[in-house]
Amino acid sequence: MGETIGFIGLGNMGQEMALRLVEAGWPVRVWNRTKEKATELVKRGATLVERPEEAVEPGGIAISMLADDAALLEIFAADGPVVKRLGAGGLHVSMSTIHPDTSRRLAKEHAEHGASYLGAPVFGRPNAARAGMLWFAVSGRPEDRLRARPIFEAMGRETFEFGDDPGAANVAKLCGNFLIAAAVEAMAEAAALAEKSGVGAAGMLEMLGKTLFACPVYQGYGQLVVKRKFEPAAFRMRLGLKDVELAISAARAVGVPLPFADIARNRALAGINKGRGDWDWSAVSLGAAEDAGVV
Amino acid sequence: MGETIGFIGLGNMGQEMALRLVEAGWPVRVWNRTKEKATELVKRGATLVERPEEAVEPGGIAISMLADDAALLEIFAADGPVVKRLGAGGLHVSMSTIHPDTSRRLAKEHAEHGASYLGAPVFGRPNAARAGMLWFAVSGRPEDRLRARPIFEAMGRETFEFGDDPGAANVAKLCGNFLIAAAVEAMAEAAALAEKSGVGAAGMLEMLGKTLFACPVYQGYGQLVVKRKFEPAAFRMRLGLKDVELAISAARAVGVPLPFADIARNRALAGINKGRGDWDWSAVSLGAAEDAGVV
Amino acid sequence: MGETIGFIGLGNMGQEMALRLVEAGWPVRVWNRTKEKATELVKRGATLVERPEEAVEPGGIAISMLADDAALLEIFAADGPVVKRLGAGGLHVSMSTIHPDTSRRLAKEHAEHGASYLGAPVFGRPNAARAGMLWFAVSGRPEDRLRARPIFEAMGRETFEFGDDPGAANVAKLCGNFLIAAAVEAMAEAAALAEKSGVGAAGMLEMLGKTLFACPVYQGYGQLVVKRKFEPAAFRMRLGLKDVELAISAARAVGVPLPFADIARNRALAGINKGRGDWDWSAVSLGAAEDAGVV
Amino acid sequence: MGETIGFIGLGNMGQEMALRLVEAGWPVRVWNRTKEKATELVKRGATLVERPEEAVEPGGIAISMLADDAALLEIFAADGPVVKRLGAGGLHVSMSTIHPDTSRRLAKEHAEHGASYLGAPVFGRPNAARAGMLWFAVSGRPEDRLRARPIFEAMGRETFEFGDDPGAANVAKLCGNFLIAAAVEAMAEAAALAEKSGVGAAGMLEMLGKTLFACPVYQGYGQLVVKRKFEPAAFRMRLGLKDVELAISAARAVGVPLPFADIARNRALAGINKGRGDWDWSAVSLGAAEDAGVV
Repeated sequence: MGETIGFIGLGNMGQEMALRLVEAGWPVRVWNRTKEKATELVKRGATLVERPEEAVEPGGIAISMLADDAALLEIFAADGPVVKRLGAGGLHVSMSTIHPDTSRRLAKEHAEHGASYLGAPVFGRPNAARAGMLWFAVSGRPEDRLRARPIFEAMGRETFEFGDDPGAANVAKLCGNFLIAAAVEAMAEAAALAEKSGVGAAGMLEMLGKTLFACPVYQGYGQLVVKRKFEPAAFRMRLGLKDVELAISAARAVGVPLPFADIARNRALAGINKGRGDWDWSAVSLGAAEDAGVV
Repeated sequence: MGETIGFIGLGNMGQEMALRLVEAGWPVRVWNRTKEKATELVKRGATLVERPEEAVEPGGIAISMLADDAALLEIFAADGPVVKRLGAGGLHVSMSTIHPDTSRRLAKEHAEHGASYLGAPVFGRPNAARAGMLWFAVSGRPEDRLRARPIFEAMGRETFEFGDDPGAANVAKLCGNFLIAAAVEAMAEAAALAEKSGVGAAGMLEMLGKTLFACPVYQGYGQLVVKRKFEPAAFRMRLGLKDVELAISAARAVGVPLPFADIARNRALAGINKGRGDWDWSAVSLGAAEDAGVV
Repeated sequence: MGETIGFIGLGNMGQEMALRLVEAGWPVRVWNRTKEKATELVKRGATLVERPEEAVEPGGIAISMLADDAALLEIFAADGPVVKRLGAGGLHVSMSTIHPDTSRRLAKEHAEHGASYLGAPVFGRPNAARAGMLWFAVSGRPEDRLRARPIFEAMGRETFEFGDDPGAANVAKLCGNFLIAAAVEAMAEAAALAEKSGVGAAGMLEMLGKTLFACPVYQGYGQLVVKRKFEPAAFRMRLGLKDVELAISAARAVGVPLPFADIARNRALAGINKGRGDWDWSAVSLGAAEDAGVV
Repeated sequence: MGETIGFIGLGNMGQEMALRLVEAGWPVRVWNRTKEKATELVKRGATLVERPEEAVEPGGIAISMLADDAALLEIFAADGPVVKRLGAGGLHVSMSTIHPDTSRRLAKEHAEHGASYLGAPVFGRPNAARAGMLWFAVSGRPEDRLRARPIFEAMGRETFEFGDDPGAANVAKLCGNFLIAAAVEAMAEAAALAEKSGVGAAGMLEMLGKTLFACPVYQGYGQLVVKRKFEPAAFRMRLGLKDVELAISAARAVGVPLPFADIARNRALAGINKGRGDWDWSAVSLGAAEDAGVV
């Protein structure tokens, strides 16, 4: 735990994740476009730097948790200062939800400077991050996965390995997000059927959430679908749309149709057109409810 | 437990369910179109009767577990011998997966003879029935639900009540089956994406089945989707199609569109056209796999 | 033209169609549940009868133009007075939009009384009927088709024959109605794209209606989609839904999925839930417009 | 007709279109990546140049007819030699099927060099081009549309104007291509229903192609769908997919869902996965036929 870690990206998730590392005793240098996000971290012992390249040590470890592919590609540009400074022996553990081809491209570009790249997207929300209860999907070179293990252990409860292809873990992550979106649409349709039939949707989803679907996605989203309280958003519809579109795009790159994802995407587009882009993702369920005439 | 129970319908599920009652000490009279299905039950102490009306006692309890609405409507016809014999004080606990309007109609018709009707569809497969681990959704008059409780306790691990409308429990059951069908299609699409991306679909679904989707449907069907071993069928595609169409039909009766159910239905129609009607329901996943070019 | 014709069903279409026969010199006896619909026809020389069987002559010709399968099956019941009176040598020319299996069943039942049945659904709206510009799809026994030809010529501009199966013409009719529904949805989506892009949907559809899609459906419905004037209805959404569901049901009977029809059906269900059931069918286009955020 | 025209892009369409200009008496300089495509044109009087910038005159007219956005953006790069040489008073008439935003971007970039840009996509196939029977959708500055009119008249039978936004004509073009794709899918489904019902799909589509759908798309594609002769391709499936995806992408840019386009796209992806990418677009109809079990 002596090794300094450069942590790039302090959104709701990034702040909590970086804090876990500080608390586990790592020296952590953080960078974020908006400095204010670092206040709590600095108080706890992290060092705030001015430019992302100052966060990383030559041959050291960089962690990124950024909003999208564009932000990641900008900061970790092929011949940019961050990758150059990381250099030989450096390792970039990339935790954002991105397109698998972005990981593959970065891995190649990093390699030209002697640096390694791990695809390591994360499942969980900020409160899970705070509790160190995240799950990681990880892929890349075996020795890099080994090296990063203590980091995953500090932040998460379990790590799932997906082999050497640095984009593989991103594929698995996008599959997970797509399955969530599909589950929400399915529950929204079932809830509309129950409600319009005079059967409580709450009771129906509660029963299923205790039996066949006794798992976090159905229990958590089931409640959100039924209660129709979509603000404040735990995960905004706009971001959910981004993730569903990433899945469609990754599927397109290998020629795979995803008809359920198309429907989920259309629900989100319609929801955003109705002014719900900053509501919680679960508000896509209003589409099914409106078509059914129950709202 | 002194009350004689008439059990009508000894399919794979019915046999196991009737056996639980026998083992719990009830006097059970069984009837089935094909007599052979009763062999084991008779050996264990049940009485096989020739005609369904001989299974029931005036004012007693009848349980039905039949293939479809038509079979149920035939045996429990408005002025037929079964309902007449059941008569005043009789209770019909109807466990088949049927249209909610069938339950509502039967409840009305039974009432004309003084008999009661409970909608009490069941979740679980034959091995769960054998173990007494079924779940029941139940709706109908409160006093009837109370009276039937020992029966549910003998066969199942938990009962979920849906109020007085005798069709309400059927709606909840159809919602559950629809959610299963939607989950299988979603997993099939995700598996196709993973596989075509060179990422193991097995690993992806295993990870999700341990985390966000740690529940029976995703774990069980996830394995079936990945292994592509569809025979022998645990639940045949033809029967799954029947259930999805019941959900669509129940939704149509109250004017509710179910776009995911439409897609699931189309997958099953295509699968049956390809000769897979007697394969396990999970074989609908071949549709997504074929479209993706991975099989 | 000496033969008396019994005309059953005087809706908007039936009135105009019967009038053509009267004007062409046939003796026409008409029946309708609501007598008032016959006023104009009687003024022009038709005879109004009290009961449907009084409209037909033994061995004569009956034409039906009824609202749906149920109405047709009731009046032409297997052993009912109409079919019995029609009897040997009688011919029923069935022009309603119905399920092909209804035609097949009626053909069989009529045959038991020596009567023939032709499936002869019609394309066109009341003003086309008035002008004798309808199109007929016809199927049944060749000699019956020959016998009915003068009738088709009096009412329509062209007749298309579909062989001996009495249900075949109904299949062709349902295909036509389904293609209309699909074209309307397609135009609705394209119009939403054009409008939201700042391009006039009117100009776009006008161009296409003059070129690649220079045909009645695209020209007529294209204007309705753009103008958004949905009342008074030329063809009510409820009736359109009935037709789309007939297509889905006929397809289901032979195991054929129709994904476009599913979407068209869902649009209509949602439209009816929004109180548009009595608006023109083209109002289904509001679904795409609302999802796109242009209305 | 004294003005020299630079014609960039000699695919199947471009060759015929340039030939019309030569035959109408314009001096035409042509460029194509593969020189052989110019053989016939040179024989007829066109001048073949080595580099695209040699085709255009300062202040002159350039026409482009290229495979996709990327090819167009490369040759007409912001500060590239073609746009620079075109310069003040120059006019680029851009006839390729591209994203509307590509037109908008190029119009802006051209303007920085004093050159104008017209979006002028074309409807029709090579034989229509040969006969001068194309249709043009045109948008851009009114004076540029006026200047280009003789060119459209030499190549096409009618021009439809869409105002000043240089991307508007592209939107209209993408709408048209989307409507074609939707019509083909609809016919494929209807044909499957007819065929499986024992009704000739050919007769059904022929009837509709003479009546409600008496227009080129339904007549032409209707025959292709029925005959199932997909090679040689008049328009390859791969290219059709490109166009449908352009429509989806243009719709996405303004937040519009296109559920029919999603289905058409998925059919094409599946078709390409089955090795049909170089077959005619109409081969997407095999998807519906396979799902229906009629092939």
